Amino acid sequence: MDLLSIKDPSFLKNLSIKELESLSKDIRTFLIEKLSTTGGHIGPNLGVVELTIALHKCFDSPKDKLIWDVGHQSYVHKILTGRACQFDTLRKYKGLCGFPKMIESEHDVWETGHSSTSLSAGMGMAVARNLKGEKSHIVPIIGDGALTGGMALEALNHIGHEKEKMIVILNDNEMSIAPNVGAIHNVLGRMRTAGKYNKAKDELELLLKKIPAVGNQLAGTAERIKDTFKYMLVPGMFFEELGFTYLGPVDGHNYEDLLENLAYAKKYDGPVLLHVLTKKGKGYRPAENDKIGTWHGTGPYKTETGDFVKSANTAPAWSSLVSETVRRVAREDNRVVAITPAMPVGSKLEGFAKEFPDRMFDVGIAEQHAATFAAGLATQKMKPFLAIYSTFLQRAYDQVVHDICRQNLNVFIGIDRAGLVGADGETHQGVFDIAFLRNLPNLVLMMPKDENEGQHLVHTALKYDDGPIALRFPRGNGLGVPLDKELKEIPIGTWEELKDGEDAAILTFGTTIPMALEAAEQLEKKGTSVKVINCRFLKPLDLPMLTNLLERKMPILTVEEAMLQGGFGSFIIETTNELGFHEARIDRIGIPDKFIEHGNVDELLEEINLTTKAVVEKVTKLARQKEKRA
Amino acid sequence: MDLLSIKDPSFLKNLSIKELESLSKDIRTFLIEKLSTTGGHIGPNLGVVELTIALHKCFDSPKDKLIWDVGHQSYVHKILTGRACQFDTLRKYKGLCGFPKMIESEHDVWETGHSSTSLSAGMGMAVARNLKGEKSHIVPIIGDGALTGGMALEALNHIGHEKEKMIVILNDNEMSIAPNVGAIHNVLGRMRTAGKYNKAKDELELLLKKIPAVGNQLAGTAERIKDTFKYMLVPGMFFEELGFTYLGPVDGHNYEDLLENLAYAKKYDGPVLLHVLTKKGKGYRPAENDKIGTWHGTGPYKTETGDFVKSANTAPAWSSLVSETVRRVAREDNRVVAITPAMPVGSKLEGFAKEFPDRMFDVGIAEQHAATFAAGLATQKMKPFLAIYSTFLQRAYDQVVHDICRQNLNVFIGIDRAGLVGADGETHQGVFDIAFLRNLPNLVLMMPKDENEGQHLVHTALKYDDGPIALRFPRGNGLGVPLDKELKEIPIGTWEELKDGEDAAILTFGTTIPMALEAAEQLEKKGTSVKVINCRFLKPLDLPMLTNLLERKMPILTVEEAMLQGGFGSFIIETTNELGFHEARIDRIGIPDKFIEHGNVDELLEEINLTTKAVVEKVTKLARQKEKRA
Repeated sequence: MDLLSIKDPSFLKNLSIKELESLSKDIRTFLIEKLSTTGGHIGPNLGVVELTIALHKCFDSPKDKLIWDVGHQSYVHKILTGRACQFDTLRKYKGLCGFPKMIESEHDVWETGHSSTSLSAGMGMAVARNLKGEKSHIVPIIGDGALTGGMALEALNHIGHEKEKMIVILNDNEMSIAPNVGAIHNVLGRMRTAGKYNKAKDELELLLKKIPAVGNQLAGTAERIKDTFKYMLVPGMFFEELGFTYLGPVDGHNYEDLLENLAYAKKYDGPVLLHVLTKKGKGYRPAENDKIGTWHGTGPYKTETGDFVKSANTAPAWSSLVSETVRRVAREDNRVVAITPAMPVGSKLEGFAKEFPDRMFDVGIAEQHAATFAAGLATQKMKPFLAIYSTFLQRAYDQVVHDICRQNLNVFIGIDRAGLVGADGETHQGVFDIAFLRNLPNLVLMMPKDENEGQHLVHTALKYDDGPIALRFPRGNGLGVPLDKELKEIPIGTWEELKDGEDAAILTFGTTIPMALEAAEQLEKKGTSVKVINCRFLKPLDLPMLTNLLERKMPILTVEEAMLQGGFGSFIIETTNELGFHEARIDRIGIPDKFIEHGNVDELLEEINLTTKAVVEKVTKLARQKEKRA
Repeated sequence: MDLLSIKDPSFLKNLSIKELESLSKDIRTFLIEKLSTTGGHIGPNLGVVELTIALHKCFDSPKDKLIWDVGHQSYVHKILTGRACQFDTLRKYKGLCGFPKMIESEHDVWETGHSSTSLSAGMGMAVARNLKGEKSHIVPIIGDGALTGGMALEALNHIGHEKEKMIVILNDNEMSIAPNVGAIHNVLGRMRTAGKYNKAKDELELLLKKIPAVGNQLAGTAERIKDTFKYMLVPGMFFEELGFTYLGPVDGHNYEDLLENLAYAKKYDGPVLLHVLTKKGKGYRPAENDKIGTWHGTGPYKTETGDFVKSANTAPAWSSLVSETVRRVAREDNRVVAITPAMPVGSKLEGFAKEFPDRMFDVGIAEQHAATFAAGLATQKMKPFLAIYSTFLQRAYDQVVHDICRQNLNVFIGIDRAGLVGADGETHQGVFDIAFLRNLPNLVLMMPKDENEGQHLVHTALKYDDGPIALRFPRGNGLGVPLDKELKEIPIGTWEELKDGEDAAILTFGTTIPMALEAAEQLEKKGTSVKVINCRFLKPLDLPMLTNLLERKMPILTVEEAMLQGGFGSFIIETTNELGFHEARIDRIGIPDKFIEHGNVDELLEEINLTTKAVVEKVTKLARQKEKRA
C-alpha cells in the first residue's frame, strides 16, 4: 500500500492478517530503502514491524499509551502515525527525529533516547489514569537489554507490588546493542527454550484447584505444590515472583500469535508481561546475519549488498584511539581492566576484549553498577578504565560523586561522545559533563586536541595514581595527525600554547581548537595578533599560564562545545575573579541554556553561533576594548 | 568484657557460643548507653550484633572483605575493630564517623553512606582478587531495603552471570528505614514464611540425580522436573534464577545457626546469598517496638524510658513545613500526588499519606524510578511532588536531565537536606545540587529564607505549570517566624531586598541569610552601609535587580552554603560578565573544593570560614575598594 497516504493507525482495524502481512513487507522495503541513504536504527526497527502493527491494531493510540523504551525502534510507529513522508529527513537538521517526539505527533506520549525509562513512565501514566477514573491501556515496550537497567528493575518492583493494570511488552531480540549479558539474560534464555506457554491459564488454575490439599513427603503444603506445578508450566516464574502475570513467549513475527496474546493480555486487571521473541534486522539478510551489533544503528549503505558507504574520513575513530591505547598500556600493566556498560562495539573495545578476555567486563546496560564496580576494583589497586558515553555518565552521577570522587579512587573514566553528537540529537548530546563534573573535588578532567595528544593523555591517565581522572573525547574521527611511537606523560594541569599572539587569547580545548586556529589566522590577516591556548586540562586549570595572561592584561575568549552555564568559560571567569584580576576582559562562546536537537554537528554549531565567524567577531571586539583601555 | 580493650577481632576465634552471647549483651548495653547521649543509628546496629560478631569470628578481616551496605550499621564492627573508646565522639566534629571510614581502620575496606553500593564494590574486589590470584572472601552485607535499589539489582545480575565467588549476606529486617515496599519485599516475605531451607544441599543434588529423565504428562523434560523439585525445596528461587546459591533463611540472633551457615557458605565456589533474619532494635524494647522507623536514627534519648530528649527548637521542621503545605494545597487540587523513595518519615509525609492514601507513593529505595515515575505522572497533567534529599537526588540525575527537564515536565522537586547536614557527614552533604542543576535548561530552582516564604514557594511551585521547579530547603528546623494564613504566589525569578544599604550588597539565600543580616548590622555600626538581598530564585536570577546593583557600581558579596565551584556565586559572576559589567567587584563565600566531613553544622561552617566574621571582613574589603575607585 501507499505508506505516504497513512494518516493515523485506525485503518489497521479492518485489515486481515494477509493484508497485515502485505503491509509488513511494504514497510520493510520502505525502511531498507529510506535508511540506506539517511542511515538510522535499521536493525531494531526491522525487528518490530509485526509487533508495532499488531499493537496499533489491538490498541487505540493515543488514548492507549504506547511507550517505546529507548525509542530508536519507533520508526514503524512513525510510519503508522502519518510520518512516512518525512523519512527523507530522518535524523537530519529540522527533520524527523530518530526517537519519539511529542511535538511530531500526539501518538508520541513519551520521549526518550536513554534506556530503561518506559516502565517508570508507564507507572506514572497508569496511576494518573486511575486517579482520574479513566480507562485506557498503558503499554511500555521494552527490550531485553533495557530490562537489566537498574531503573527498569526498580520499576518492575514497584509495579509488581502495586499491581497496577499495565501491559509490559518484553521485546526479546536476544541482543540489545551488543550481545546481551547478565543473569536476567540467562533467565530469559531458559524461558525462550522452555516452549510455548500454555495460553489456557484459566484452565490451569482450574486444574490446580483440583489438586488435593495434602503435603508431600519432601516439604510442602498444598499451596507450595500448586506453586510447584505452576512453575513447571510457567517459564516466567521470575516475573510471576515479582507480581506480574507472565504470558509467552510469543513469536513476534506471527500475527495470529501476537493478536491472540495481546487480546488476552488486555483482559487482565493487574500487570501483565508479554514476552515477545523478535529477530533484529528481520527481512534484510545483512542485518539478520549481524552477530555483534553492526546493524544496530548505521550510516548509509548499499541496499543490495549491505555494504556500508565508507566515510571519507580515514583518521582513526576517537573511541578506537582511546581503547586501543588502553590496550597497549594494558600489555605492560596487568592492573589495567576495561569496563563497558553494554557498549563494547560503540566504545571499540573488541580488540581489548580479544587480547584480554579476563580483564574485559561488559556489565550490560548498568551504568551505576559499572562505575561502582570500577571503584571496587580501584580499592584493590587495579587500574579500571570505564568507557562510557558522556550522556550515559549522567546515569552514574551519584556513583562518580559518592563512590569514586569521595573515596578519591583511581578510576580512569573515558567520556566518549562528549560534545554535540549530531543525528542522535537532544537525548544524547554530551554537553553537560563539564558543569556536573567540575564541582566534584579530587577529579582531574581532560580533553585532547588531537589523536596524538589523546594517546598521551590516555597514557597519563593510566600512570596517574592520585585519584579519579577523566578524559572527554568527541564522537567521530580524529584529525588524521601522525601518532608518536612512544607514549609520554603530560604533566597534570598544564596547558599548551598553540599560537602566540599579543592582542587577545583564545582559551579552548578539543573539537573547537581548529575553529580557534582558523579564526586566529583570519584575525592575523586583519592585523589582530591572537594567542591560542589548548586547555587540555579542564580541571585543574593551568593557573600559572592563566595568571600570566591576566597579568599581561590579555583579553580572553573562551570557546567550548559544552553548556556555557557552569561550564569551562564559567570556570575561567570564576577563577579570574578569585585570583583578583577584576579588570580582566573575558568573553565566552559555547552552548546556550537550551536543549539542542538533532542534526549535522556543523549545522547545529551554526544554529548556536559556535563558529569561526563568531570567534573572529568576539575577539575583534575584545581586542578593540583592549586598545581603548591601553 | 571490657570493650575498650578490644584491639582487633582476632580474640573472637577462641570464644565459645556462651561467651559470644555474653559479648553481645555487653555490646548492646554499651550501644544503648553511648548512643543515648550522642544519638546515632541505634535500631540497625542493635539488629546486627550477633551477625557482626559471627562474621568477624568466621572470616579473617581485613584479608576477607566485609562490605557494609549503607554503612550506618557498622557500629558493632567498629567496636570489634578497636574503636569502642571513640564512641563518645560518634558523629561529632573530628570524632568517630557514623559510617565506615578507611582512615579510621584497615577493617573499613569500603566507604559509604548511600545505599545499594556494596554488591558492585564487592564484585570489583572479587574480580581484583581473581586477577591477582589471591584467595579471600568477599562479603557484602546488604539490607532488604537496599536490595531494591536499581544498582544493587544491576550488580546481582552481573554477579549471577559471572558466577564470581562471593558471599552476599542479605540482612532482612523487614524494615529498612521505612516499612519496606515493592514486589521483591513480597518475594522475601514468602521466603521468610517458607520455613528453613534444607541445608543438605548436596544430599538434595544427589536425590535429584536419581530422578529418572522422563517427561511428565504436563510439560517437561527431566531438567524441568529437577528444577521443579528444587523449587519445591528452595524458597530462594528468585535468587537461584539469577545464578546465586540461596541459603536460609537463618535466625540472625542465633549463633549456632549463623556460624553453621557461614561455614557452609564459605565452601561454595560461586556466588552465595545467605538470607539472615534480624530484628531492628533487638534487645532494647523502645526500638524493638518501633513500627515506622523512629528508632532508625535518633538524637539523644533517656535510656530507661526511650523518651527522646526534646530539641530546644520549637519551630517547625523544614520537611514538615513543606510536606504539610503540599498536603494543604492537595486539598484543593486533586492533581497533587506525593512521591518518596523510602523516606516517608524523614520527609514528614505521614500526614499526607494518612489524608490521601491513594495519592501517596513510597516507591522504596529507587530514586531513579521515583523521578521518572513523577515525569510519567506529569505527562498526564498531574502535579507530582517528589520529596527527595539533595544527596540522593544525585542518584536520579539522568532522570532529572533526560526525563524531567528535557521534556519540560511540570514536576515539583522538593530538595530536602540541602546544604550541610551535620552528623551524617560527607556522604550526605547536600552541597552539589546548585552546580549540577543550574546547567539544566527549563528548571526553576528556589530556596526560601524562612518557613513563611517556604510555604509560599511551595504554593508557587504547585501553581506553576511551565515546567520543572525545585525547592531546596535545609535539614532541621525553621526560624520560628509567624506563618501567613493565606498562601500566595511569589513571582518566578524575583529576589527581595531585606535591608537597604549603599556601600555594598550581600546576595545570599536560605540558611545564610541570618548570617548576612547579622554581618550587615555589625558593619552598619562600623559605618558601612550594606544591602542584603534574599536571592530566593537561584535560577532564573532576578536580572533587573542584579542589573540595578551593577549599574550603581555596588560591590557584591555572594554567600552560599553550597559548593563554590559552579555554584550560585559562580552564576552571579558569569552573569555579570555576560551583562557586560566588567568593572564589577564581586567576591564569594561558600564551600571550598573538598568533601566536608561530619560534625555540628556550626563547627563545619567555622572550619570552612563560612561565618559572620568572614562576611564582615569580605564586605569591608569590598566597600573599601569601592571608595578607592570612587
